[in-house]
Amino acid sequence: MTEQRWYQRQLFALLLILSFALLSAVSARAQSDPLASWNAGPGKQAILDFVKKTTDSASPDYVPPAERIATFDNDGTLWVEHPMYTQLAFALDRVKALAPQHPEWKTTMPFKAVLDGDLKALAAAGEKGLLELVMASHAGMSTSEFEAIVKGWFAIAKHPRFKRPYTELAYRPMVELLHYLRDNGFKTYIVSGGGVEFMRPMTEAVYGIPPEQVIGSSIKTEYQVKAGKPVLMRLPAINFIDDKTGKPVGINMYIGRRPVAAFGNSDGDVQMLEWTGAGDGARLMMLVLHDDDQREYAYGPADGLPNSPFGTFSQATMDEAKQKGWVVISMKNDWGRIFAFDE
Amino acid sequence: MTEQRWYQRQLFALLLILSFALLSAVSARAQSDPLASWNAGPGKQAILDFVKKTTDSASPDYVPPAERIATFDNDGTLWVEHPMYTQLAFALDRVKALAPQHPEWKTTMPFKAVLDGDLKALAAAGEKGLLELVMASHAGMSTSEFEAIVKGWFAIAKHPRFKRPYTELAYRPMVELLHYLRDNGFKTYIVSGGGVEFMRPMTEAVYGIPPEQVIGSSIKTEYQVKAGKPVLMRLPAINFIDDKTGKPVGINMYIGRRPVAAFGNSDGDVQMLEWTGAGDGARLMMLVLHDDDQREYAYGPADGLPNSPFGTFSQATMDEAKQKGWVVISMKNDWGRIFAFDE
Repeated sequence: MTEQRWYQRQLFALLLILSFALLSAVSARAQSDPLASWNAGPGKQAILDFVKKTTDSASPDYVPPAERIATFDNDGTLWVEHPMYTQLAFALDRVKALAPQHPEWKTTMPFKAVLDGDLKALAAAGEKGLLELVMASHAGMSTSEFEAIVKGWFAIAKHPRFKRPYTELAYRPMVELLHYLRDNGFKTYIVSGGGVEFMRPMTEAVYGIPPEQVIGSSIKTEYQVKAGKPVLMRLPAINFIDDKTGKPVGINMYIGRRPVAAFGNSDGDVQMLEWTGAGDGARLMMLVLHDDDQREYAYGPADGLPNSPFGTFSQATMDEAKQKGWVVISMKNDWGRIFAFDE
Repeated sequence: MTEQRWYQRQLFALLLILSFALLSAVSARAQSDPLASWNAGPGKQAILDFVKKTTDSASPDYVPPAERIATFDNDGTLWVEHPMYTQLAFALDRVKALAPQHPEWKTTMPFKAVLDGDLKALAAAGEKGLLELVMASHAGMSTSEFEAIVKGWFAIAKHPRFKRPYTELAYRPMVELLHYLRDNGFKTYIVSGGGVEFMRPMTEAVYGIPPEQVIGSSIKTEYQVKAGKPVLMRLPAINFIDDKTGKPVGINMYIGRRPVAAFGNSDGDVQMLEWTGAGDGARLMMLVLHDDDQREYAYGPADGLPNSPFGTFSQATMDEAKQKGWVVISMKNDWGRIFAFDE
C-alpha cells in the first residue's frame, strides 16, 4: 500500500464512522414509532401535531423548553382504577394487617365492613368512612416508615382481575406518550387526587417521573426530633385535596407555571383541563374514555355505560370536551395495545 | 502539492480542530475559577471538597445525579434582608399605593403606622399586625394580577442604602455557588419563609432557578371561573408557613427527597439543616454569618453584634453549627466580592 492510499483510507474511514453515527441516530428516530401502541387515528394525530408545532422554532405555536409542562392524572389515565383505586386496595389491606392490634375494629364501622369484606357496607359509610380508613392506614408513622410500607405492599399486592402487580397495570400507550413528550423537551408531571406519598415510591420506575414531579393529595406532617434524629411524622389530618378545583391550585402551588398539555379521564380532571386550555398559544387537552371491557373496563358516558363510584366521567364532561375541543381517547379504538404484557 | 500531501494536510487539519475543541473546553474549565468571588479558606474548600467527592463515581461518597438536591434559604442567604425583608418593603409600598381606596387606614393600626412611616409602632403591632398587612397587600386579586404587581414593583423599587433594584442585591458568591452546583449536576431549590408567588417572578433572572424549584410560604388560592375565564383568586388566609419546622415539611411536600446540601443564615433554617444532615452519606450544611458592616451588614452572634428583628442568627444556632460540623461562612473573610456591581 502506498502512503497516499493509507491517508486516503484513514480519512475515508473517519468520514465513514462519522456518517454512520449520524445516519444511525437519524434512522433510529425515523424507524421506531415512538407511539407504537397507538393506532393511527385522531388521538395519535393530535399528539403528533401538537408536539410538532410546539417544538419547531419556526412555528408560530413554538413553546420554549422551559414552558413545556405536561400534567397527567394518574388513576384511570396512566393506570387501571378498577374495580377500585389502587390506594383504596392498599388501605383495605393495611386495615386487615393492623386489625390484630385493634380488636375494637371487629365491631366498629367502617373497619368492620373492611374486615367482613362487605364493600356495600363500606360504600354506605361514605366519604366520612373513607377518611377514617385513610387516617387509620396512612397516618401515625414517619414518612420513611410509610415509604417502606408502601414499597412492601407494591412488591406483593396483585390486581384481582389481571393477577399482576399494580405497577404492571400502567397503560403502555400513555407510558409511550410520557417518553415521547420528554424526548421532545417536555417536563411531565403527575397531578392526581391520590396521595402524593403513596405514588412517589413507584412513579420513577413505572413512568420515569421523579418524586419532585408528583403532585397529589396529602395529609399533614410534623417535624419532630426522636432520640436525636429528625423525623417527619404523618398526622391524621388532611393537608390538601388535589382533585377537581384543587388541581389548578396544586399545579400553581407546586409548579408556578400553567401547563401547555393536560391529560385526564374523569370529572376530577375538568378544572385542570380548563386551566390548561385558558392559557395563550397552542394547547393539548385529552381525556381517556374507558370503553373497552374486553381488554380493560368500560364505564363512563358512551353508549349508556354504567358510571363507577370512582373515576366518574359524566355526560357533562363529555359535552364540555366536545365544546372546547378536548380530544377524547377511545381505549378500544385508539390503543392497539393496552399493557406492556399484552401480546 | 502532491495528492499525498493534500490528504495529510486534511487529516492533520481535522485532528487539529478536534484537539483544539477538546483543549479549549478543558482549559476554559481549568482557567476560570467557578467560585471566583470566594476567598481561599475553609468555606470555599468545604464546597470544592463536597462537590468533588459526591460527583466522582469512584468515590465512596458518590451521589447519583437524581439525588443531588441542594436547598437555599433566600433572605439573608442569597440576597440582602436588611434593613427589612424585601417582601416587607413591598407590602409597605403596596399599602401606601392602596391607601387612597382605604380612607379608614389613616386611623387604623397597623396601616396608620405604615402611612405615618412609624416603624416602631409597626413593630409594636407584632405578628398579628404583620399578618394584616400581608393580607391587605397580597390577597384579593388573581395570581396573574399579583404576578404583574410584583414584577412592576421590582422594576421600580430601590434598596434604601444601596440605591439599586433589589434584584441586584443577590450575593455574587452565592450565585456562583448555585451555578457551580448546577454545572455539577445538582438541582438547586429555594426554600424560603418568603412568599412563593413573591419570589417566582424574579428567581429565574436573579438566580437561574425556575418557578417549579421555588418553595415558600403561601396564602390560599381558590379556583373560580370569571366571565368564562378560569382564575386562581388569592384569599386572605394562610396556606403554609415555610419557616423553621415548616422547611423540612415543605421540602418533603414539594420535592419528596432529602437534600444533600442546605444553605441558610438564621434560626429559621436550623431544621432544614438538621433534616439535611440526618441523611446517610456525604452532606454539606452552611450558614452565612453577616459580619461585614462595611460592605453589607453585621448582625448575629459574633462579637456581640446586635440581633435584628428579622433573620435572627442566635448563639444557640452557632453552638449547634459547631457541634454538628455545619460550616459558617464569614461574609467578611470568605467573600472577596459581595455584589456583582462591586469592583
